[in-house]
Amino acid sequence: MTKKNHQLTRNSANFVPLTPLSFLHRTADIYPQRESLIYNDLRYTWAQTRDRCTRVASSLSARGINKNDTVSVFAFNTPEMFECHFAIPMVGAILNTINTRVDADTVAYIIDHAESKVIIVDRQLWPVLKAALTSCKLQPKIIIIDDPSATEKPELPSDIEFTFYQELVVHGDDTFSWLAPDDEWQSLSLNYTSGTTGLPKGVIYHHRGAYLMAMGTAMSWALPSHPRYLYTVPMFHCNGWGHVWTMTAAAATVICIRAFTPRSVFKLIEQHEVTHFGCAPIVLNMLANAPVSEQIKFDRTVHVITAGSPPPAIVLESMNQFGFEIMHVYGLTETSGHILQAAPQEDWQEQSIQKQAELKSRQGVRFSMTEKVDVIDTQSGESVPWDSTTMGEIAIRGNTVMKGYLKDPEATDKAFHNGWFMSGDLAVVHPDGYIQVKDRLKDIIISGGENISSIEVESVLYKHPAVNEAAVIALADEEWGEVPCAFVELKVGQEVSENELIQFCGDNMARFKRPKKVVFGELPKTATGKLQKNVLRKRTI
Amino acid sequence: MTKKNHQLTRNSANFVPLTPLSFLHRTADIYPQRESLIYNDLRYTWAQTRDRCTRVASSLSARGINKNDTVSVFAFNTPEMFECHFAIPMVGAILNTINTRVDADTVAYIIDHAESKVIIVDRQLWPVLKAALTSCKLQPKIIIIDDPSATEKPELPSDIEFTFYQELVVHGDDTFSWLAPDDEWQSLSLNYTSGTTGLPKGVIYHHRGAYLMAMGTAMSWALPSHPRYLYTVPMFHCNGWGHVWTMTAAAATVICIRAFTPRSVFKLIEQHEVTHFGCAPIVLNMLANAPVSEQIKFDRTVHVITAGSPPPAIVLESMNQFGFEIMHVYGLTETSGHILQAAPQEDWQEQSIQKQAELKSRQGVRFSMTEKVDVIDTQSGESVPWDSTTMGEIAIRGNTVMKGYLKDPEATDKAFHNGWFMSGDLAVVHPDGYIQVKDRLKDIIISGGENISSIEVESVLYKHPAVNEAAVIALADEEWGEVPCAFVELKVGQEVSENELIQFCGDNMARFKRPKKVVFGELPKTATGKLQKNVLRKRTI
Repeated sequence: MTKKNHQLTRNSANFVPLTPLSFLHRTADIYPQRESLIYNDLRYTWAQTRDRCTRVASSLSARGINKNDTVSVFAFNTPEMFECHFAIPMVGAILNTINTRVDADTVAYIIDHAESKVIIVDRQLWPVLKAALTSCKLQPKIIIIDDPSATEKPELPSDIEFTFYQELVVHGDDTFSWLAPDDEWQSLSLNYTSGTTGLPKGVIYHHRGAYLMAMGTAMSWALPSHPRYLYTVPMFHCNGWGHVWTMTAAAATVICIRAFTPRSVFKLIEQHEVTHFGCAPIVLNMLANAPVSEQIKFDRTVHVITAGSPPPAIVLESMNQFGFEIMHVYGLTETSGHILQAAPQEDWQEQSIQKQAELKSRQGVRFSMTEKVDVIDTQSGESVPWDSTTMGEIAIRGNTVMKGYLKDPEATDKAFHNGWFMSGDLAVVHPDGYIQVKDRLKDIIISGGENISSIEVESVLYKHPAVNEAAVIALADEEWGEVPCAFVELKVGQEVSENELIQFCGDNMARFKRPKKVVFGELPKTATGKLQKNVLRKRTI
Repeated sequence: MTKKNHQLTRNSANFVPLTPLSFLHRTADIYPQRESLIYNDLRYTWAQTRDRCTRVASSLSARGINKNDTVSVFAFNTPEMFECHFAIPMVGAILNTINTRVDADTVAYIIDHAESKVIIVDRQLWPVLKAALTSCKLQPKIIIIDDPSATEKPELPSDIEFTFYQELVVHGDDTFSWLAPDDEWQSLSLNYTSGTTGLPKGVIYHHRGAYLMAMGTAMSWALPSHPRYLYTVPMFHCNGWGHVWTMTAAAATVICIRAFTPRSVFKLIEQHEVTHFGCAPIVLNMLANAPVSEQIKFDRTVHVITAGSPPPAIVLESMNQFGFEIMHVYGLTETSGHILQAAPQEDWQEQSIQKQAELKSRQGVRFSMTEKVDVIDTQSGESVPWDSTTMGEIAIRGNTVMKGYLKDPEATDKAFHNGWFMSGDLAVVHPDGYIQVKDRLKDIIISGGENISSIEVESVLYKHPAVNEAAVIALADEEWGEVPCAFVELKVGQEVSENELIQFCGDNMARFKRPKKVVFGELPKTATGKLQKNVLRKRTI
C-alpha cells in the first residue's frame, strides 16, 4: 500500500516555527501608519515601532548578544519596555524582565542566576541596580532608559560604563535581519516568580507558547480589530500577560503608563478611547473606592480582564456603573498568564446582579489555547466530583505551560506530574463545570480536621462595609491545630472593632470558619497587587 | 556554562499536538447547552454534536477504520457533513470530502486514488456513486445519509450492502475515547482540486494547519463570541474554508443548508439572525440580481467573506444596501483556504464608494496565520516592485500550506520552490502593499508581446449594464499570437450586440486589450462557482 505517501515531509513553505515576532512584521507591513504606542506626548506608528525594535536588536547584536544569551530589563511600562519584547528575541536572546519592586539582593540573585549579559534599566531604578551590582558575581553591560517623563531622576553612573537606550536606536541598523527561531521550542523569555517561598524560580517561556497565548487570548476575549489597550498590567509580570504580543497581533494601539493612580486610569481611558485593559482586582478596588470627583462613567463598554486573586463580588458589581465589562481570569506565571476565564453564559443575564457577580468571580473554564484543566484529589489523583464542595488541586495541560524552571530540575520535576502541570491551587468544580479556587494549597487552614478556605473567610470580610482589604491566614492553635486569623485594612474614616468583625463573620458563614483573631493595619502586597501572606505569617510568629 | 538548562525538554503537560478536534471538546465542555447546528427543523446543542461525533467515530472504529485510513464523504452541507469533520479524524483517519457536482468517473478516480475504505454518501448522490462503483477498483463500505429534507430520493441500493448514517449514531458508543494525534503533522483531510488541467490532485492537510487556520481566521476576521454562521460555502471545498473548525472554536451556531437560492439565503439570514457567512462572488451576484421581492435589507451588519475570484467592484458596491460588510479574501485549496484579505484601512472611508469598492476588490494582505506572501518575477525570482504594474507569481509561506499532493511527488516538488508554495496566480503589488491578482498564470493572454489580464477585461465587461457574467480567454491569432475572446451571459431581458460590447471595452480600457470576439450564452461553472475557462477553451477549438 501507499500509506507512506501520507507522510509528506515538512519544508520551509509549509512549516514555519511559531513565534510572536511574526506578529510585529505582519502588523508593520499591513498597518505601517497606524499608531502602535502612545506614551504621554509620544506617538509611534507600527512602522516606527518595528524600525526601533530592529535597530535595538542590531545594537544588541553588535554588543555580542547572541542566541540563548539573557538580556534583563528592569523597567516600567514605557515604550522601551514594549520594544524589548521584540528586540531581544530578534537576536535569538532571552528576555528577562525583573519586577520593579524587588530589592537589590533579589536583583543581584536574578542577574547571577539568569547569567544576564546585559541589563536594560530605567534611570529611576538605577540606585537599586547599583546596589545589586555590588553583590553580583556577574557584571552585565548597563543600558539606561532615560525617560524624560520620569519624576525621579537619580544621578547617572559615574564610575561604571553605560549606554543610553536611545543610542541603541539612533546608532542601530534598520536593515538588520532579525533571527526567526529555527525551533519554536526555543526559549523566549525568563520570568522570575515572586518567591513567596524560598528563592525566586526562573520560569522559561518558548516561542510556540507565546504565539499560541496571543492567538488564544484573541479568540477567547473575542478581540476586535484594532483594540485600544491601556497597559496597566506590569510587563514584567508574565510579559504583561502576553498582551505585548497579543496586541501587536491585533494591530492595537497600546497606551503605555509608567505609574498610575485611579485618576490617571480614568483620564487615560477617556482621553485615548481605551477599549480594553487588564489589572489585578486590587486596582479595580482602587477605582471603585476613588473619590467621586476622580471617577468617570463611560457610556460605552470597556473590556477589562482581571486576575491575581478572585475579585470580591462586590467589586465586580460596582464596576458596571463605569461601563466596565469585567472578565475574571486565572493563571500563573508558569502558564504564561491566564488559562481559565469566567466566560459568561447566556442564562447568567437572568440572574440577579449579585448572583451574576458571584458567577463571574469564579476562575471558570479554559481559554481556547488551553488543552485541559482538571481539579484532582491530591491523594488519589482522581478528578473531583462537580459538587461545588470537594476540593482538589488544579492541574493544567497546554502549549502555554512553561518549559520548566531554569537550573532547577528538582522544582521542575515536582511541578510536572503525570502529564499535568500542578498549580498548587486548591479548587472546587461547580455543577456547570466552572472551577473556583478555594485557596493556595499552602494557605488552606485545617481547623479541627476541617478545611477552611482563607479566601472564603476573606470574601465574607469584604462584605462588611468598613473593610477595604482583608487577608486570612492560619494561626497555630493548641486546641484546634489551626484557626483563622484575619488581617484587615479599613476604609478611610471607617471604624469597626475586632469583636464586631468576628461576630459579622459568624453570622455570614459556618461559625467554625470565623476568624478567632483580627489584626488591623495596612496589608503587605507584591508588585502585582497580591497580598503577601508569607509576610503576614511572620507577623503572627 | 549552564546554557543547556535552557533546553528543557517537552513533556505532555507543556506540549500538546495542535488539532482542531480540541475545539469541539472545549466548546462542548463549556457551552454544552448552546445551539451548535440548525438545519430546517433540527436543532442540536454542542453536547449533542460531540455525542453524535463520538458515536460515529466509535462506529467507524468498529468497522475497522484506523489511523491514516481514508474515509470519503460525498454529501451536502447537512449536519452529518459537519459531524464527519470531527468523527473521522477522531479515529485518526483522513477525511476526504468529494465535490457534489463531479461526475461518476471522477468519483471513481478519487475513491481509487484516495484508497477510500468507507464512503459516506447522501442518498441523492447515490446514483452517481453507484455508477462510480462500477468502474472503481476498490469497493469501499457504503454509508448512506438519508436526509428527510432531501427533495430527490432515488432508490436505495438493492444489491449492495450499506448502512444508514443514523445507525452509526444510534448504535455508537458515547464513551468512545477519541484519538488525539501524537504528531500535529498527522494528515487530517484530503481535498481534491477541481482538475481544470489534467487529473484531480489530492491535497493533504494536517492537524497543525487546520488548528492555526481556525485561530488565524478568528483573529483576522475579528470574530465575536458566538457568531451565527450560515454555511453557504460547500464543506467539500477546503473543508468549507476551515470554518467547520473555526466556528466550533468560536462556539458559534451554524446554520446548515443543503442547497440554496437567493430567496432562501435572505430568509435564513433573517430568521436565524445570521451574523457571518462566506460565499463565492457569483453568489453575491445572484443576491444582488435577485428579484426585489426576494431581497431583504438588514438594519444590522452581516459580515461576509468572499473568495474564488475577484468580486466585480459593482457587486461589492451593491452589497452595502443589504447591510453586508464584504471582506474579499484569497486562497487556494493548497493553502487550506484564505490566506490573503483585503483588510480595510482607516483612510479608505474617506474615498468614494466606487474607489472603496476597487480597494476592497483586491486580494490584499496576509492573514495572521500566514507567515509571508510575496509576488515574484517568474524569470528572476526577485520580488516585483510595488508599482501596481509589474506582474509576478504569488508565492506563499505558512503553516496552513498543504503537506503536498497525495502520491504525486512530481507535482509536489513543482509546487514547492525555494521555500515557497507557488500559487500559479499572477499578480501585481500596489504601493500600499496590497496584492491584486491579475490572472492565472495559464490564463494570461499574450497579444503582440503584451500581457493582457483576462480578469481586467472581464471587470470592464461587468461594468456594462446588460452583462450578468463574463469570462475572457485567449484565442489563437495568426497576426497577434493571441487575442482576447469574451464569453458573456446577459441579464434576463437585456440585449447588447457583439460590436457594441467590443466598442464599450475599447472605450473603457487600453484599446489593444479589448476582446476581438464575443460569444453569448450560459457560462460553465465549477461546484464552487468558478468559471470553467478550460471548458470555454475547448469551445473555441
